[in-house]
Order: sequence, then C-alpha cells, then structure tokens
Amino acid sequence: MSSNAAIKKEPTSAINPLESLSTLLKGDMAQVNTLILQNMESKVPLIPQLASYLIAAGGKRIRPLLTLACTQLYNGDMTRSYRLAAAVEFIHTATLLHDDVVDESDERRGQDAANLIFGNQASVLVGDFLFSRSFQLMVKDGSLDVLRILSDAAAIIAQGEVLQLSMTGNLETTMDGYIEVIKAKTAALFAAACEVGPIIGGQDPSAAQAMAEYGLNLGIAFQIIDDALDYVGGQDKIGKTVGDDFREGKMTAPILFALEKADAEEKTFWARTIKDKNQNDSDLDQARNIMARHDTINLSMALARSYAKKARMALAEAPDHNIRALLDDIVTFTIEREF
Amino acid sequence: MSSNAAIKKEPTSAINPLESLSTLLKGDMAQVNTLILQNMESKVPLIPQLASYLIAAGGKRIRPLLTLACTQLYNGDMTRSYRLAAAVEFIHTATLLHDDVVDESDERRGQDAANLIFGNQASVLVGDFLFSRSFQLMVKDGSLDVLRILSDAAAIIAQGEVLQLSMTGNLETTMDGYIEVIKAKTAALFAAACEVGPIIGGQDPSAAQAMAEYGLNLGIAFQIIDDALDYVGGQDKIGKTVGDDFREGKMTAPILFALEKADAEEKTFWARTIKDKNQNDSDLDQARNIMARHDTINLSMALARSYAKKARMALAEAPDHNIRALLDDIVTFTIEREF
Repeated sequence: MSSNAAIKKEPTSAINPLESLSTLLKGDMAQVNTLILQNMESKVPLIPQLASYLIAAGGKRIRPLLTLACTQLYNGDMTRSYRLAAAVEFIHTATLLHDDVVDESDERRGQDAANLIFGNQASVLVGDFLFSRSFQLMVKDGSLDVLRILSDAAAIIAQGEVLQLSMTGNLETTMDGYIEVIKAKTAALFAAACEVGPIIGGQDPSAAQAMAEYGLNLGIAFQIIDDALDYVGGQDKIGKTVGDDFREGKMTAPILFALEKADAEEKTFWARTIKDKNQNDSDLDQARNIMARHDTINLSMALARSYAKKARMALAEAPDHNIRALLDDIVTFTIEREF
Repeated sequence: MSSNAAIKKEPTSAINPLESLSTLLKGDMAQVNTLILQNMESKVPLIPQLASYLIAAGGKRIRPLLTLACTQLYNGDMTRSYRLAAAVEFIHTATLLHDDVVDESDERRGQDAANLIFGNQASVLVGDFLFSRSFQLMVKDGSLDVLRILSDAAAIIAQGEVLQLSMTGNLETTMDGYIEVIKAKTAALFAAACEVGPIIGGQDPSAAQAMAEYGLNLGIAFQIIDDALDYVGGQDKIGKTVGDDFREGKMTAPILFALEKADAEEKTFWARTIKDKNQNDSDLDQARNIMARHDTINLSMALARSYAKKARMALAEAPDHNIRALLDDIVTFTIEREF
C-alpha cells in the first residue's frame, strides 16, 4: 500500500462545515429524527428492528440536512421541512437497503450490511415499506410540486441503478455514461432534497432551479469522491470495505481514467479482473498501483472539482445568508474529505 | 393424487364475468395498456425488457379492471381512471417482481420468473422503478385523496409482506394472523383499486368506503382461494407450480385448518416439513392427503365464501347498474374459479 502514498492527504485542520450546519440546525434535526423514528414504527416488529439497525448506525444525514438548510435559506416553514427531510432520508435508506441486496454488500456504515443480518428478503420488503412511508409523508405535506419533485427523483434513481447494473464489468463504458449513472443514482436525490427548500419557501421556479443545480452538482462531486475513496486508505476511514467497487466490477472514475491510459498489459489486467471478474488476492493492490501510475485518483478529484465549481456558481444565486456560506463550505469539504 | 378427487370440481359452464367486464371495457382497457407500455419506457433498455417480459405475459389484470369498472359505476372521468388503473397495475407488478425475489420463485404467470432470467438485482431495481412510476402517474392525476389511498395501500402491502415473512414456517400462526397478512398483502390493493372509482366520480366518503369494503373482501376471498388452489390440480391450470406455498413453508388457510385438526403424528409431519423445512419428494402428496382427510380445502373455500358475502353486501350500496351486476358475478366467479 506504500505505493499509494502519493495520493494520501494530510488531515485537514478546517472545521467540518457539515458539523457546523448540524450544530446550527440541531433542534430542527432532532425534530426530523423524531419523525424518522415515529414513521419507522409498525405493528410488524421486524420493520422497526431492521430500519433502526440501519438508521441508528447513523450515516452523514447529509440529505435531510440539505433540505432543512435550503428551507431556512428561503425562510420556509420548518415544520413542513421536517416531514420532507424525513421523506428524503427514507428514500435514501430504502435505496441503501436495496443496493446492499443488489451489490451483495458485506458492510454498510461500518457494520454488517442489513441483508446479512436480516436476509435479502427482509431488506427488499423493508426498503419497500420505507419507500411507501416517504410517499405517505409527502402526501401529508400536501404539495403536489413536492410530490412531483420527489417521485421524479425516485424514478430517476431506480433508472440510474439499473443503468449502473447494465454497465457493470463493461469496459466500453464512457465517462459520459458514468456521469449519467451517478447523476441519477446519487445526485438526483441531492438535487430534490435542495429544491424542496425554496418550494416550501414559496419561491419562484428560478430559485428552485438554482438550488436543484446546486444539489445536483454537489451530488455528482460527492459521488465521484466516494468512488475515488473506494481505492484509497483503510477500511476504518470510510466505513465500508476498500475495493468493493473493484470486486463488483463497477465502472467508476478511477477505473475509467486508468482504462483511457492503459497499455496492452494493463488492458489485459482490466479485462480479466473487471470484465471477466476473475480476481485474486493481489489484484486490488495491482489495480491501485496502476491507478497511482496514471494518477487516476487525482484525475477523479479534478473531475469532482469541476462539478463542485458548478455547484458553487448555482449557489451564488441564493440570498446572502450564513447558511449559504455553510453550503458553500460543504462543497469544499465534500471534495477534500477523506471519508 | 386420486385421494384429492373429492375436492375436484366440475368445470363451470357459467360465462366468466371477468371476461364479460373486459369485453365491456375493452376500449378503456386498451387505453390503460397503452399507458402501461408508454410508462414502462426508459432510456435504460433493461427496464422495458424486464417489465414487458412480466407485463406481456398477461395475468388477469383484475386490479386495473376494477378501477375502470368502479369509475364507470360512478360516472367518473375515464381519462383519469386510465392513468390510475395503470398506476395500480404498476404497484401490483412491482410487488410481483419483489415477491419473486423474496420467494425465490421459479415460475410466474406460466413462464420462468423474471428473477431467473434477468437476475434478482434487476428484479429489485425494476420493481423500484415501476413503483416510482406509479407515483408519477398519480402525481400527474393530481388528486391528493388518490395519492393518500394508494400510498397508504403501498405501505400496508409492504407491511403485509414482511409480516408474512415473519410467519413463514411458524406453526403458532393463527387464522387471524393469516387474515391480517392477506388483507395487507393482497386485499389492500384490491380495496384501493375500487375506492379510486367513486373518488374520481366525486362521490362522498360513504360511497368510497363501500367500494373499498367491496374490494377488500373480494381481495381476501380471492387470496384464500389462491392459497387453496396452491394444493389443488395441475400446474397448467393456475400458471404457477402447485405446492409452492408448501415448499416455502407459507402459513395459509389449508395448512392452518389442517393444524387445528392434527393428531400427534400429523403435528410431527407439519413440524418437520413446514417448521424445519425438511421435505422429501413425497411430502407434498402426503400434505394433500392430510388436507383431504380433514377437508381443509373445502373449509378454506367456506372461509372465502364468508368474505365473498361481505363483498356482496358492500356492493349492494352502489347504484343499480350493469357493471354492479358484473362486479357481483365476479365475487361468485372468484370463489368458484379453478385457476
């Protein structure tokens, strides 16, 4: 792993703006958490058991935090925001549960993936339940605009997941195809989570559009970094197993850049390990060596930065506000993070 | 199998009222089918491929037909009904896709189950897509009442599926518990499909309530018969493998009645085959013999008839109409059908 030293970074001393935002919106997030716990309840005990296993494990809660922040930024009714932030988190959690079944994951949020503990069947069905619950929360809110935004996002997410599945192990995947996947599977929900804010605030479509753009580009940057980090550092840092994407043959930025620069021998390596999924224990290290040789982690970081810039430009259209400053810091933090 | 002769029925010569209703609403069903095909489309080719594999295989389309019929019965706007009937069918199809993953089914609608052809992963994700699409269709319709009814139904279905999973192989399951499961996993969508009709027709809550009652009790009767038929007749008739429920250890009416009457030896048999899932090739026939001895298929049929009666009573509150007569015939047909 010493060959990857070049791509290691010094721990940043900057204050984590996600934590600052969480602190600023602490009372609001507590309300969201209460709603999340209430709406996981069911007379079928396995549902809160499984849901709380995943939700209690935490995660960054970045999506509901974005909804709260974007509502506050536009002076929207925070009571509505609580419910919709919970709906957004439920869509996300449902996606995670189904993802883990699809990916046959072993770990999620630093613990055994729910499907290993409760079985694939329960993970599929509890995912469906949380997804339905998110729509019930939206219906209680009563805004058709919000329902449209989030049901569109849900359909886009599912399409992105299927597209990603179709591309797995396909060495012909283009960078555009990859961006299309992460736009759909990750960034669409970031966009919707942000867009809901100005909608609650009764803003005109241009404000909603700007915040959707912010969320979309932040989400793309976030996912590219996530995909880069899958090849960097130790397991403890990112709370998931390093090399998962490699083992699953997922076509992500670090591999796509490596393929662009691959010589004949490397092409053979990628064909064997990714296309044919014929891997041995030393292949992940070999993949990381090839990536280091072509600097593909830094190329991925640079790609993420280009989307981060777009996110910041969109955010500039929002009103001047301490929350806007924090949302700007979150962009920086997202592309500099190591977890 | 000769021991089951007592529970075999003569083919009924009566006209199939589902077919009569389909013929009456042929133009309307064609509109629904067009909407179904349009909304399965996606730029991700695997989605229409998998969705059309299942949807083209047919099935009874009873749920969208109920929505159309109940709309017509209350002079509702049929254009709205088309969209919502498609939404109802999408929820049902999504449930089937996820069910087959959960049940590890080999067959569905007389062909290989989609998960065998396309993989569990694609089945989970395309199910999610169809589920999202159903909400997009409802949002286009724009009625919050409809959105509430169908999102509530979706949450109830998911809970019913999880409850069923929790009860699998559990010999302590009560008849009440069983009814609770089938109310949720099957009847809730029948109820919602029917309730939408008077809502579109702008009727007051009592009419909607009556049609929901009709659908709920029809759905319960329908599922009890389905569960009874899982132990009756040949594979060709019901388009699924006979004995599936037995092999999966599902606690359905025929087994629950048999357990009520079981002697010590039979209790040992059920504990081995259902609780411990330790089955050999002759066990299904043995189960059917025990059921014949205790007449549990007929007991199940009688239970179904009690719900059929409730469905008819609720239907009596609807306006006098040729469609009401057909909906009444469908109740009879449901409990007399052999497929």
